[in-house]
Amino acid sequence: MAQQRPAHGSVRPGGRTARTRQAVLDAALAELGAGEFGRLSVERLAARAGVHATTVRRRWGSVQGVVLDLFASVVEEVTVPDTGELREDLRILLDGILALYATPRNRNLLTGMIAAVVEHPDASRVMGRFFTDRTRHVAVIVERAAARGEVPAGTDAAQVIEAVSAPVYYRLLVTHQPLDPAFARRTADVAARAARAGAFT
Amino acid sequence: MAQQRPAHGSVRPGGRTARTRQAVLDAALAELGAGEFGRLSVERLAARAGVHATTVRRRWGSVQGVVLDLFASVVEEVTVPDTGELREDLRILLDGILALYATPRNRNLLTGMIAAVVEHPDASRVMGRFFTDRTRHVAVIVERAAARGEVPAGTDAAQVIEAVSAPVYYRLLVTHQPLDPAFARRTADVAARAARAGAFT
Repeated sequence: MAQQRPAHGSVRPGGRTARTRQAVLDAALAELGAGEFGRLSVERLAARAGVHATTVRRRWGSVQGVVLDLFASVVEEVTVPDTGELREDLRILLDGILALYATPRNRNLLTGMIAAVVEHPDASRVMGRFFTDRTRHVAVIVERAAARGEVPAGTDAAQVIEAVSAPVYYRLLVTHQPLDPAFARRTADVAARAARAGAFT
Repeated sequence: MAQQRPAHGSVRPGGRTARTRQAVLDAALAELGAGEFGRLSVERLAARAGVHATTVRRRWGSVQGVVLDLFASVVEEVTVPDTGELREDLRILLDGILALYATPRNRNLLTGMIAAVVEHPDASRVMGRFFTDRTRHVAVIVERAAARGEVPAGTDAAQVIEAVSAPVYYRLLVTHQPLDPAFARRTADVAARAARAGAFT
């Protein structure tokens, strides 16, 4: 990207904003990769990204804001499958989430975000809203299953997605048990069976 | 208890140890009740409990050790029901867990513990072991259901308990969605249906 960067004066505001965002998110990712969550500060991020601290504060408000934005951009990499079968879609979705958290960097990002919310409760609204939006986005898997008649009409799609997501975060944050393909298969199976049986209507 | 406390020299070591433990746990609970997690230190706890900081360090190692011990003592207050029906047992268990986290103090204790583990990864083993032990303890609900023939032989009891616990912690820590009796009922229903259908064998 850097090689193709146009001369400073010719950059459209949108382009420069996007580049600044990427530089700051990259800086946060690098710091988190080094397990430096506790030492993260607006000044450190700005210095690493080569931007002004005031730019970071204006756009994200705080370090927590940057971490939430970074987390959102990472989670959005998980694709939403469409195989024609609910259980298989849920299993593939789970495999994608597990792949996401297979790297220490992304696990640090998640736990760092949770810790940030503990210290700054205002961030919990932002995080909650992000997960609600993301769940709604992924819920298309269940809506397609309902359209195919695989689950009863009136199934609450968001609740099915919650049923497969919750065990992942429970293991990551609370029990620290392993997250392997067998876990993904079983979790998808449990949710799909319950959905077919009408437990989420 | 204080009124009945015998003269110093007559105290059996076990009794004094138990009192010291209670004093330190009470001090931690008081500090957490005030939302002071970030400022918690061995010195602060020792001063509030009226014991030596070295006593706290010898017994718990660190503030994280005290918080985990406190958390364990609070969680153990949740009773394990035995109504003769799996779904109802799971629902009552969930109601107990929700009642536990209905107070800001206990929510602070949980989130503080999660944050402590982020800063001190060694504590994650202790926390993971606690939840594994607790799950095994509560799994008797499912073992009784298997003995009654309500769920198939070979059902993994711990997995059923995980299926009802995970959504609680997911909402508490990640999505911050409400935890109400309808949520408890639905979560118990989903897990019981899946268990009856053999999804956890």
